[in-house]
Amino acid sequence: MAGSSFGSLFRVTTWGESHGRGLGVTVDGCPAGLALCEEDIQAYLDRRKPGQSRYTTKRSESDSVEIWSGVFEGKTTGTPISLVIRNSDQHSKDYSNLKDVYRPGHADLGFEEKYGIRDYRGGGRSSGRETAARVAAGAIAAKILRELGVEVMAYTASIGPVVCDPSAFDEEYMRSSALYMPDADAEEKAREYLEDCMAQKDSSGGTVHCVVKGLPAGIGEPVFDKLDALLSQALFSIGAVKGVEIGDGLFAAMSRGSENNDQYQETEEGPKKMSNHAGGILGGMSDGSSVLIRAAFKPTPSIGQAQTMLGRDGEVHAMEITGRHDPVIVPRAVVVVECMTAITVLDLMMRNMTARMDHLRKIYC
Amino acid sequence: MAGSSFGSLFRVTTWGESHGRGLGVTVDGCPAGLALCEEDIQAYLDRRKPGQSRYTTKRSESDSVEIWSGVFEGKTTGTPISLVIRNSDQHSKDYSNLKDVYRPGHADLGFEEKYGIRDYRGGGRSSGRETAARVAAGAIAAKILRELGVEVMAYTASIGPVVCDPSAFDEEYMRSSALYMPDADAEEKAREYLEDCMAQKDSSGGTVHCVVKGLPAGIGEPVFDKLDALLSQALFSIGAVKGVEIGDGLFAAMSRGSENNDQYQETEEGPKKMSNHAGGILGGMSDGSSVLIRAAFKPTPSIGQAQTMLGRDGEVHAMEITGRHDPVIVPRAVVVVECMTAITVLDLMMRNMTARMDHLRKIYC
Amino acid sequence: MAGSSFGSLFRVTTWGESHGRGLGVTVDGCPAGLALCEEDIQAYLDRRKPGQSRYTTKRSESDSVEIWSGVFEGKTTGTPISLVIRNSDQHSKDYSNLKDVYRPGHADLGFEEKYGIRDYRGGGRSSGRETAARVAAGAIAAKILRELGVEVMAYTASIGPVVCDPSAFDEEYMRSSALYMPDADAEEKAREYLEDCMAQKDSSGGTVHCVVKGLPAGIGEPVFDKLDALLSQALFSIGAVKGVEIGDGLFAAMSRGSENNDQYQETEEGPKKMSNHAGGILGGMSDGSSVLIRAAFKPTPSIGQAQTMLGRDGEVHAMEITGRHDPVIVPRAVVVVECMTAITVLDLMMRNMTARMDHLRKIYC
Amino acid sequence: MAGSSFGSLFRVTTWGESHGRGLGVTVDGCPAGLALCEEDIQAYLDRRKPGQSRYTTKRSESDSVEIWSGVFEGKTTGTPISLVIRNSDQHSKDYSNLKDVYRPGHADLGFEEKYGIRDYRGGGRSSGRETAARVAAGAIAAKILRELGVEVMAYTASIGPVVCDPSAFDEEYMRSSALYMPDADAEEKAREYLEDCMAQKDSSGGTVHCVVKGLPAGIGEPVFDKLDALLSQALFSIGAVKGVEIGDGLFAAMSRGSENNDQYQETEEGPKKMSNHAGGILGGMSDGSSVLIRAAFKPTPSIGQAQTMLGRDGEVHAMEITGRHDPVIVPRAVVVVECMTAITVLDLMMRNMTARMDHLRKIYC
Repeated sequence: MAGSSFGSLFRVTTWGESHGRGLGVTVDGCPAGLALCEEDIQAYLDRRKPGQSRYTTKRSESDSVEIWSGVFEGKTTGTPISLVIRNSDQHSKDYSNLKDVYRPGHADLGFEEKYGIRDYRGGGRSSGRETAARVAAGAIAAKILRELGVEVMAYTASIGPVVCDPSAFDEEYMRSSALYMPDADAEEKAREYLEDCMAQKDSSGGTVHCVVKGLPAGIGEPVFDKLDALLSQALFSIGAVKGVEIGDGLFAAMSRGSENNDQYQETEEGPKKMSNHAGGILGGMSDGSSVLIRAAFKPTPSIGQAQTMLGRDGEVHAMEITGRHDPVIVPRAVVVVECMTAITVLDLMMRNMTARMDHLRKIYC
Repeated sequence: MAGSSFGSLFRVTTWGESHGRGLGVTVDGCPAGLALCEEDIQAYLDRRKPGQSRYTTKRSESDSVEIWSGVFEGKTTGTPISLVIRNSDQHSKDYSNLKDVYRPGHADLGFEEKYGIRDYRGGGRSSGRETAARVAAGAIAAKILRELGVEVMAYTASIGPVVCDPSAFDEEYMRSSALYMPDADAEEKAREYLEDCMAQKDSSGGTVHCVVKGLPAGIGEPVFDKLDALLSQALFSIGAVKGVEIGDGLFAAMSRGSENNDQYQETEEGPKKMSNHAGGILGGMSDGSSVLIRAAFKPTPSIGQAQTMLGRDGEVHAMEITGRHDPVIVPRAVVVVECMTAITVLDLMMRNMTARMDHLRKIYC
Repeated sequence: MAGSSFGSLFRVTTWGESHGRGLGVTVDGCPAGLALCEEDIQAYLDRRKPGQSRYTTKRSESDSVEIWSGVFEGKTTGTPISLVIRNSDQHSKDYSNLKDVYRPGHADLGFEEKYGIRDYRGGGRSSGRETAARVAAGAIAAKILRELGVEVMAYTASIGPVVCDPSAFDEEYMRSSALYMPDADAEEKAREYLEDCMAQKDSSGGTVHCVVKGLPAGIGEPVFDKLDALLSQALFSIGAVKGVEIGDGLFAAMSRGSENNDQYQETEEGPKKMSNHAGGILGGMSDGSSVLIRAAFKPTPSIGQAQTMLGRDGEVHAMEITGRHDPVIVPRAVVVVECMTAITVLDLMMRNMTARMDHLRKIYC
Repeated sequence: MAGSSFGSLFRVTTWGESHGRGLGVTVDGCPAGLALCEEDIQAYLDRRKPGQSRYTTKRSESDSVEIWSGVFEGKTTGTPISLVIRNSDQHSKDYSNLKDVYRPGHADLGFEEKYGIRDYRGGGRSSGRETAARVAAGAIAAKILRELGVEVMAYTASIGPVVCDPSAFDEEYMRSSALYMPDADAEEKAREYLEDCMAQKDSSGGTVHCVVKGLPAGIGEPVFDKLDALLSQALFSIGAVKGVEIGDGLFAAMSRGSENNDQYQETEEGPKKMSNHAGGILGGMSDGSSVLIRAAFKPTPSIGQAQTMLGRDGEVHAMEITGRHDPVIVPRAVVVVECMTAITVLDLMMRNMTARMDHLRKIYC
């Protein structure tokens, strides 16, 4: 049972490899009557595409999206939306030296053990390129969410040891930053750090933060499809994610109840939560506050240094990984986190619509 | 669309509230021919049930499991297994003062906003008591895994600021420890810390570590139902979890590729990985090493101190939460983590069975 | 992957065997705020329970339903509703002579080949008794449908060669008829026919018709989860069903487009369809007319005559099937058809709620 | 919640409209290691494509399939297989006169009521053209089944009142027959009947029979995902199907148990069933005999005669439907029935693989 679909009611199914004809996604269950054109989607893809800075792979892909179905006269019709992105700059030969080894930090061994066969060109299906399809689908989800008053925003919070200062948060700066960092000083230091990594043929990890604003309370489906549970599935499904936190995250494990509980106080505008340690999620449902999510990405496993790895012949081989790789994937992953979050939140908002007899009556009576 | 089911092929559906007649679970898709009796399951429930130490709630429940279907002459038949646990020690009246407020750190507001109605007795469906059903199902999954050579083991790794020393790991000690800690010194300090919390009518968070040994490579279904993605959904679906990490987890975000990649070396027993920063999962599939998982639990939100909270009347109320609560839930959550991990791993092993034509031929030709 | 669940949003999962402790169903996704008590459900179960006439099994079961979860202060809470029905009149020993043969017309061989083990007492999981759980869940669905203005009604349309005359349709008569036939003359003849069957230790088949009134247009999810497609799955999942028709059914295959198309005419009350050959379903969606469904049931396979059958020893055996059996199951199947139809229709109405941006805005804006 | 996916483990998701850029299907879960090329699929599509005889639409489409992903060096890799078929001969203008009326026998009204918007060009998503995607996916399923020793074969059993004589069954003749009828005399009469229909600007219905040979016993998942239940969903999901029967079908309702039960006799080759009234399915599982399925198709609703229909203005309109239509769709539907059957059967065979501990041990121990 393969796992290329995500979401229950707003359901996306992705396909495609790094070095095939292209890749794409089918969005089944998109509500009808949404104004939608290729530009809506392209704007998101442009944030993910390679070649935006010297810190990304040199592979040159336009990542142009084509809508093949589900839109008629500029509006979604309720039928499945098929989105296609062609591959154009493939250097398959770059990878032929990799077909007989399992690269450290990659899925090579797993694919071969699972399927008995592996498309070794550029990582095949496990390439980060697959996330372009998620971004295309997520752009639609984000557009719907905006119409419902919900905003999703992600940014780079750290690269290696360089951490943004929350008090220096500048959203506008972030939008024009090559590293999607909202703190100019931190970005400067992160660039220096990355230059050093590149000089040493090495790579860096980092973290992405994501905020969801405007989400009504009660979104999330206990007890297994809770908002935090599905958000974490969504984020861990992105290659290289090794940790996910909600609100205070790991820090909560070290605190006391009296510190961690979010209490209320009266204000001029009515009762307000005095803190948001919970990150906007209690008991797996949104509580009406902003939802705060953090994802930790490991460093790009493909590095130019010589490494020892297992071969298909059962021997250990020392090799340098050539090819075109990002020294850090975090800046390009920002929009992927945003899009997976949007898909998850929209899907749960749709699932919530049948939670009450009141809602059924509102639609049918 | 409610979310009370988990797993695709080994599918569990739980039901029940803290203060109803009881709770239970239906396991659909359990393979036929497994020797199974109530004792197999009870042994797991006994590890979760209250009253094992002074650090757990005083609610007295035997948590006796009854098998109502799916087992014939001591073996599973392939039909759904219905497991029932009766509630016996209910003090519903304890909770009547809570029906008009939303407790800090609890799902009260979310439930009311979502459903327009809320069973306020003991948290209703959001009570930790619901996890008894998961443990009952997980005991079956764990038994099957053992027959396939896969072991799942979890333990308390920290309570508040007190962290176990990995070099002092003593599995035997852990099994008899009231706090399920594998380090006697740390446990001693944790007890002192908890006494202090209790004296101050406060509570503590903590972390649980879980290890899966013997899992073959290639388990996990890219690109959305990856092993780490579903494990994190499984763990975040447990109330109070605020963070999940695989392998190096958050630390990976600060490291470099050359540090984080697991390289190989020749040994007398053949090629071996020199480290396990990946925690046994690469590209969303097991890589043949031990799988290492960490979950961070927030402190029990129900504390005896007076707190300010929102009321259904839209006003702020200061109140003390009475009732019977655990000063720390981590020790009782250990077996829940183990069971959710077992269900996830078994389900993905079953899903993996159709991945190759070879496997189809092995069964049908 | 077992198949004990039906429905996507209003999701029922049944469990239990003919001769275990009991049987039951979990309804996950029932909207909150529905007034519900055991009597609502019992009224439906009473229509299915044995012993209502001399044409049903002599097994004596009260089939009393117990609500174990999901209802608080007389209303559904949105959490899973667990319904339990205990078995009380079990004569397991009656069946021990059947454990080594595969009864003609029964699932015995299939169960043994599939699972390698078989609960032979009363057919185990394949007993018609399993349908009690479906009726319990369907009673809830039917109650919700009524609140939304949708009525589901089924009746016996034929028994063996005896067919009800549509022009003699008398709903009131049907409700008090032991055979659930709406035509007194036909019922008289059917009784005579059944007496003859019983005298010859034989059994009879028959057909059930079902009508859904008040369903809005547009219900059904192309292209695979069409209204007719899921209705037919629902009905074929009832043991003994061998054919399902919508509207003109098989007759449509013999007709011409000019005869089969439903045309419109002006009337005093506005435009009206002049016929309903389509049975209220076009392109897999309701068209606003009454939905007309027919299911054909084979005769009860358990008969008292000697029959030749395969044994587990690979030999042919001649045997009489003893035990307590219905000479015709159709009258008791009427309420099962009604309930499976109600579950299917409600689930698709819930699925339809997210079809349009308009609906999302109605709930969230 | 849209319904464009079918199957659980071998999961197909179709997309595309009659008059968009094209249509396609993603097959997720196809086992790895299957030799597959475009010709394997094209051979099936050629049996469905228009223009094969004077009894099919004059729309000229090559229906050339392109494999965009999931195949590497001639073998399936276990990753999703994306198949694309471009539309080439679109006459969208033909349909502009239909945008303000709801054609009799079509889904027009349902689509508009459901989604508030309708792609009226050629029926949009409800066009029979959508079935090309199913055939492409089904060709893969059929190839896998053949490797496992299972054959699926369908044919035209009747057109209007003209019924094939089972005793004249000639498979070779059928394969070259424009109408896919296995009886030359019946085909001759059917041609005459169709000429008469065409002369009167009318259309005809018909039936398709389908046989599955070589299926092992025990395939099908009680109690809802039975083999017959999912086959009937699969067939009713094909536009124009109004009835489905298994084995004796409707006739079983008129017979007695002693006639309908399939008894055994000793033969020289061992015990044999003396009849197959059950059509190879008992209790929702295959019984080792051939599976016999029948589907009844209504006549093509688009006919050249003037008809009265409802308009979007709420008035009744008299209109002739122009455009390019088949006078009978049954011959082109034969391969669609075959392919939907293949997908259903393969998916259930894959689901059956986890039914027993024995099977798990065979793969993992």
